[in-house]
Amino acid sequence: MVKPVLVLNGPNLNLLGVREPEIYGTTTLEDVRSACTTRAESLGLSVDFHQSNHEGELVDLIQRSKTDNSGIVINAAAYTHTSVAIMDALKMCGIPIVEVHLSNIYQREPFRHHSYVSSVANGVICGFGSKGYELALEAMEQIINA
Amino acid sequence: MVKPVLVLNGPNLNLLGVREPEIYGTTTLEDVRSACTTRAESLGLSVDFHQSNHEGELVDLIQRSKTDNSGIVINAAAYTHTSVAIMDALKMCGIPIVEVHLSNIYQREPFRHHSYVSSVANGVICGFGSKGYELALEAMEQIINA
Amino acid sequence: MVKPVLVLNGPNLNLLGVREPEIYGTTTLEDVRSACTTRAESLGLSVDFHQSNHEGELVDLIQRSKTDNSGIVINAAAYTHTSVAIMDALKMCGIPIVEVHLSNIYQREPFRHHSYVSSVANGVICGFGSKGYELALEAMEQIINA
Amino acid sequence: MVKPVLVLNGPNLNLLGVREPEIYGTTTLEDVRSACTTRAESLGLSVDFHQSNHEGELVDLIQRSKTDNSGIVINAAAYTHTSVAIMDALKMCGIPIVEVHLSNIYQREPFRHHSYVSSVANGVICGFGSKGYELALEAMEQIINA
Amino acid sequence: MVKPVLVLNGPNLNLLGVREPEIYGTTTLEDVRSACTTRAESLGLSVDFHQSNHEGELVDLIQRSKTDNSGIVINAAAYTHTSVAIMDALKMCGIPIVEVHLSNIYQREPFRHHSYVSSVANGVICGFGSKGYELALEAMEQIINA
Amino acid sequence: MVKPVLVLNGPNLNLLGVREPEIYGTTTLEDVRSACTTRAESLGLSVDFHQSNHEGELVDLIQRSKTDNSGIVINAAAYTHTSVAIMDALKMCGIPIVEVHLSNIYQREPFRHHSYVSSVANGVICGFGSKGYELALEAMEQIINA
Amino acid sequence: MVKPVLVLNGPNLNLLGVREPEIYGTTTLEDVRSACTTRAESLGLSVDFHQSNHEGELVDLIQRSKTDNSGIVINAAAYTHTSVAIMDALKMCGIPIVEVHLSNIYQREPFRHHSYVSSVANGVICGFGSKGYELALEAMEQIINA
Amino acid sequence: MVKPVLVLNGPNLNLLGVREPEIYGTTTLEDVRSACTTRAESLGLSVDFHQSNHEGELVDLIQRSKTDNSGIVINAAAYTHTSVAIMDALKMCGIPIVEVHLSNIYQREPFRHHSYVSSVANGVICGFGSKGYELALEAMEQIINA
Amino acid sequence: MVKPVLVLNGPNLNLLGVREPEIYGTTTLEDVRSACTTRAESLGLSVDFHQSNHEGELVDLIQRSKTDNSGIVINAAAYTHTSVAIMDALKMCGIPIVEVHLSNIYQREPFRHHSYVSSVANGVICGFGSKGYELALEAMEQIINA
Amino acid sequence: MVKPVLVLNGPNLNLLGVREPEIYGTTTLEDVRSACTTRAESLGLSVDFHQSNHEGELVDLIQRSKTDNSGIVINAAAYTHTSVAIMDALKMCGIPIVEVHLSNIYQREPFRHHSYVSSVANGVICGFGSKGYELALEAMEQIINA
Amino acid sequence: MVKPVLVLNGPNLNLLGVREPEIYGTTTLEDVRSACTTRAESLGLSVDFHQSNHEGELVDLIQRSKTDNSGIVINAAAYTHTSVAIMDALKMCGIPIVEVHLSNIYQREPFRHHSYVSSVANGVICGFGSKGYELALEAMEQIINA
Amino acid sequence: MVKPVLVLNGPNLNLLGVREPEIYGTTTLEDVRSACTTRAESLGLSVDFHQSNHEGELVDLIQRSKTDNSGIVINAAAYTHTSVAIMDALKMCGIPIVEVHLSNIYQREPFRHHSYVSSVANGVICGFGSKGYELALEAMEQIINA
Repeated sequence: MVKPVLVLNGPNLNLLGVREPEIYGTTTLEDVRSACTTRAESLGLSVDFHQSNHEGELVDLIQRSKTDNSGIVINAAAYTHTSVAIMDALKMCGIPIVEVHLSNIYQREPFRHHSYVSSVANGVICGFGSKGYELALEAMEQIINA
Repeated sequence: MVKPVLVLNGPNLNLLGVREPEIYGTTTLEDVRSACTTRAESLGLSVDFHQSNHEGELVDLIQRSKTDNSGIVINAAAYTHTSVAIMDALKMCGIPIVEVHLSNIYQREPFRHHSYVSSVANGVICGFGSKGYELALEAMEQIINA
Repeated sequence: MVKPVLVLNGPNLNLLGVREPEIYGTTTLEDVRSACTTRAESLGLSVDFHQSNHEGELVDLIQRSKTDNSGIVINAAAYTHTSVAIMDALKMCGIPIVEVHLSNIYQREPFRHHSYVSSVANGVICGFGSKGYELALEAMEQIINA
Repeated sequence: MVKPVLVLNGPNLNLLGVREPEIYGTTTLEDVRSACTTRAESLGLSVDFHQSNHEGELVDLIQRSKTDNSGIVINAAAYTHTSVAIMDALKMCGIPIVEVHLSNIYQREPFRHHSYVSSVANGVICGFGSKGYELALEAMEQIINA
Repeated sequence: MVKPVLVLNGPNLNLLGVREPEIYGTTTLEDVRSACTTRAESLGLSVDFHQSNHEGELVDLIQRSKTDNSGIVINAAAYTHTSVAIMDALKMCGIPIVEVHLSNIYQREPFRHHSYVSSVANGVICGFGSKGYELALEAMEQIINA
Repeated sequence: MVKPVLVLNGPNLNLLGVREPEIYGTTTLEDVRSACTTRAESLGLSVDFHQSNHEGELVDLIQRSKTDNSGIVINAAAYTHTSVAIMDALKMCGIPIVEVHLSNIYQREPFRHHSYVSSVANGVICGFGSKGYELALEAMEQIINA
Repeated sequence: MVKPVLVLNGPNLNLLGVREPEIYGTTTLEDVRSACTTRAESLGLSVDFHQSNHEGELVDLIQRSKTDNSGIVINAAAYTHTSVAIMDALKMCGIPIVEVHLSNIYQREPFRHHSYVSSVANGVICGFGSKGYELALEAMEQIINA
Repeated sequence: MVKPVLVLNGPNLNLLGVREPEIYGTTTLEDVRSACTTRAESLGLSVDFHQSNHEGELVDLIQRSKTDNSGIVINAAAYTHTSVAIMDALKMCGIPIVEVHLSNIYQREPFRHHSYVSSVANGVICGFGSKGYELALEAMEQIINA
Repeated sequence: MVKPVLVLNGPNLNLLGVREPEIYGTTTLEDVRSACTTRAESLGLSVDFHQSNHEGELVDLIQRSKTDNSGIVINAAAYTHTSVAIMDALKMCGIPIVEVHLSNIYQREPFRHHSYVSSVANGVICGFGSKGYELALEAMEQIINA
Repeated sequence: MVKPVLVLNGPNLNLLGVREPEIYGTTTLEDVRSACTTRAESLGLSVDFHQSNHEGELVDLIQRSKTDNSGIVINAAAYTHTSVAIMDALKMCGIPIVEVHLSNIYQREPFRHHSYVSSVANGVICGFGSKGYELALEAMEQIINA
Repeated sequence: MVKPVLVLNGPNLNLLGVREPEIYGTTTLEDVRSACTTRAESLGLSVDFHQSNHEGELVDLIQRSKTDNSGIVINAAAYTHTSVAIMDALKMCGIPIVEVHLSNIYQREPFRHHSYVSSVANGVICGFGSKGYELALEAMEQIINA
Repeated sequence: MVKPVLVLNGPNLNLLGVREPEIYGTTTLEDVRSACTTRAESLGLSVDFHQSNHEGELVDLIQRSKTDNSGIVINAAAYTHTSVAIMDALKMCGIPIVEVHLSNIYQREPFRHHSYVSSVANGVICGFGSKGYELALEAMEQIINA
């Protein structure tokens, strides 16, 4: 049986839909988890869903994924642009990786245009809000079953 | 009734699946068109599918899309990185735009890391081969019906 | 008798006054042509007025100008910033060149601050909307009759 | 009643006054806390005073400040120059922020001249040793009661 | 009645037509003043014409223009490229600004390609010698009476 | 007895509160002088308060401060970013220097992020409006009486 | 039998020997074609000789070369420095490529020092005028018959 | 008696020899610890051996080393290139520091060519696999007993 | 008879030998004037010796030199690195120019390595203290009498 | 009679065909000399053929060429990218220069993309192995007899 | 039997311990040779020890090493940062290379942070004075006998 | 008695006055030597005068100067801009150094604006032809006898 897909969320995403809903919308991280679970099921997959503000914890989770998961869908948030440690962990995990971002990072500040994750991911999806997580799971399903 | 989505393909994509299939795979642009048509239908959409090697023709097609289409899915290929004219046309068309690339452009040569299209698109999907076009259409459907 | 001045317009200018009039105003390219014709007459000149979205067509028109025109007033739009081919054609045409832009390009995105056309033009006028075309014709008249 | 001001100290500041007193002086972080408490009282404020070497813990504390604090005085030390995660957390907290540094960071190594915190702070005070914390609290008081 | 337009000339322009006439031509700054006066009259305007080698004096004149003038035509010469003070004064004066240069500064040394004035001017005219002052006045007239 | 602190204001600050009060507020430079005088007195200090639009005059005043003043509080405005001459004068004056800015210069245009003054000042305070002058005087008092 | 070598000429080369012969010499593109034909015959080769000002047409011709030609000798002129589309087409054609330039591009403006074509060509010949085309054909002959 | 040398290992090194042994070899971090212990003994030293994926924990350990250790041998892995916090902690610890890397980082991606650790270390050893740790201990012994 | 050589001194040089003599030595600007006068006489020359802190005054003096002087020896001090206005004035004066600096500016901060004056001077002498003025006069004498 | 062409080879080329023939091929520098001699004869030329690992010796040989040779064909190898001395010597020799490289240097490491030799050579030929020397001689013959 | 290790020393190292011993210590190059000989013996190796100030001689020695030596320990001194010729020779020699520096070059001037040698060496050791040569020999022994 | 001053000349200076006298003048290096000898005598000095095209020989000569000479006047020609080895040798020689150039190097190609020699020389003289050597000797005399 296929092992669950690790859906990993980086710093400050725990506040999604809680802070400034007039700007970021009212979808919470709990809503994202729920949408991921539903879509995963319809694709014959399951998900492990995590969030952390700590770079080291994210590295720990990625290291464990090699044995526990069949793929990683990751929104590393701010660490996308600064963490070589997360990039190194991803490179060593040996399972497919899909990078996802809620917003189109290429329309934000210049320092958000570069992603350490992109250089080790199979593909990237950004700019479609929480819908992007669902698309990432469908892309993951195709890679796993290719 | 919803107007068709313009699916626009840039230079050299007409050779997809024809040249060096051992490298790029055997999926042809005709196969991509067919997959797009099928997925569009299942989403309640239809597609206008075009390819051109000429920057000016792509600008012409984008200009016309304002009245003829409900959205644009664009893989501008090489013009992604060099065409301010395409970027300007996209900015003026006033309909949703999803950028798609077959490969993960952030793992290729540095001059392919910058996209003029990204700065005017709603979102970006790259690295999932022709599957990316289908995901782009699903993302487009959600934007159109939001 | 003095040959007509070639007034050349680059990509997307055919949409002037048609798209987003609340932003760009309601002056159309047809209005610009009309204002140019009137001002030219008052200066003892006539104009050949063209627009194209195709880089190669603009090169073709510039090449022909050497025999057909007494000067070029050019708003190369997006190609201002990317076309070495247009620059090379202008350098070879051997007649006076005045560069014009509707907006002040030095107040827009950084990639619009550099102009290949400026390096081969006699002078530059920007930031005065369609009025700039009229000023360009007056400057041209002075150069031609100097 | 006014909620306490969060006074947040980044990595290695726990060693203030302990290591190399001949260079950094003998003022300890405990002394800074004490001076902050006294000054805050004279301004009608109170303080929550924290230090951590962990980027993730600092993000956690900033996230909580939205409900628990009326403002943040932050000396992010080394994370000033590397942490997009702290910047993002600060941007979402919705309360006033004053950045403080013991030394004049613009006279140190070039990589310390850029601060992610400055781009989201109301103001910056640096170069006055622990006195700067007191000035920061006075500036904060004025912003809160404006 | 419309207040006069301030025509402001920066350092070394007092030598126009006096030094190296074989290079710069024989038109003097007095000739420019005279041409400006005539053209202004034909447009229903008048001019205040000044030159100074002192950055501070130019700032003083710009500050006074808010009450004394209806617009500024400025050739800041060398200060174009180095004076943030003049840029700030222009930004605060609240009246229309047209930048003019005798030569096409984009064909000269690289450090002359950047203008602090351009970023606060309504428009720019360069490369037409003293004729550019006349075109600037016409552009100014249109802005004032818009 | 302690010599007065020189409070030095650079170009365009004479217009503070006069131009565009809806943007910059209604505090005038006279108000700043008055607040400085009051705060200085409460700290046992007095102030020499000057403003000039001329770089050379500011250099003259700084040169004289060595004998006439006990410290310098300087808001060099636009010269902050361009004047090596003011930096050199400050470096030679041998008395404490506190740099102050009304706004947070690190949130403005990139060319305002670099300050020649910062590299020779004891400390920097910015982003608190005219309140920053008062904080600067308090910091100065502490340095003088340290 | 060996298929003909495609000799491809980019924008403005149709004016060779026609415009400013005192600068560029009197050799026309027709002369170059003729010299190529003669040399090719002496090497046991034949040539397909084309020129276009249109980037898209050049891409079309390169795409067709895979089946129609045994090699490409290309002088992409201005597109050498700006066209990723031509580079991509050349990379996909699977036949040998020799880049040629009439002048020594490394002695011209800096933006002409970088060539997208060089990164996919077997070799480069520049600076020998039309003679360079003949040398390119000899080099091509050796590669084809290696 | 000499205090133990702190041998500190950064993120992902816990997977050494476990992941992709065909690439990184079969030496585990446990093997490195064992080799370090043996070599240290032969040099009259002992070692404290740690690994952590958490930047903050590494800072904590470095802070404690001032009292507990006689020197630090550090392989900061990914944090080598991003952590100013670790650099600052190292600068304050006041004991000798030897930097070690398993691979030759100057032959890897450009962002790995810069090390914050190098700027505060006594010396650097890289490219000799786990043998480098032994050489680092010998170098450390010489510094301690110098 | 030969007109006097203008010896021009920029901002802060009036403090030479007065401020921090332990660093800059005790030679005053008056001493430099005296040494210049003596050396000039021995070379059959005379000198006009000036100092100003005002950029505009220095421009004024340089403009007048065309008629009043046979050459300029200039130590522009801080304006060396920032003043395009002085450079432009020097370029227009049409008499020989020798640049002199007391210290070796190429061993000071990077922003002092670039000199606008060098690009228009006949030659440069730096690093020999006030002796450099004497050498400059001898070099000037040779140029004048060449 | 025509003086011989100097064929000059830089550092490490003496190992051509000797080291790693599986990579660089089995053609030796002796073979290149022989091919040059033969081709030269068929063109009515002769060659002086040299190799040196010493920058100074190459400068010496170039200096002597003015009197002894009719042209220089130079493959400066590594010195291509670092030697201003060789560039200066070539600029002073006053005879035609053709630069040649065995490989396409524009496809190698970035520091090999810049050539000091190109800026003083008549033309450049690269990427055709030893055949390039023969083409260089033919180009040289045309220049000499032009 | 194992061939000797070539220990190669670049320019100015012949002065080691002779010039400014208060700065560089009193260890001479002769002492280094002696320590190398002793350590080599204890490792079952022997050494060929050379120094030269001439780039070309160093290239000659490296070329000969392929047949005469089993490995190279190189301190290229100043040529580390400027010599592509030495890098090319090392790349062609086909035997193991260990780079060594007396000081920590990453704490010196920026132009010493880049090493052409590092990109072709197996590993790098720097900052441990002459002890580094001994460590280099031990590392070399392990590579040779691996 | 004072030891002679080493006057050192770099690559291609042996051709001074021999090659292209219409450009570089007819003064030969022999003439320079003669002028140096005469001026040295009048200053109570003598000179050792050398030229070499070899970087290593120049390093050798500088190394010997510590014992044989009282100062160095050096025109390193092309090596000025590329030789870290010469810079290192000069830094170690412990005697005064005056850098001289025939032309004003700051008006030549950009790569000639940076000098490794300037960073270790007492002072710099350039732009006065061979006269500069005489001025350098006078400056040297003052330093030696200071």
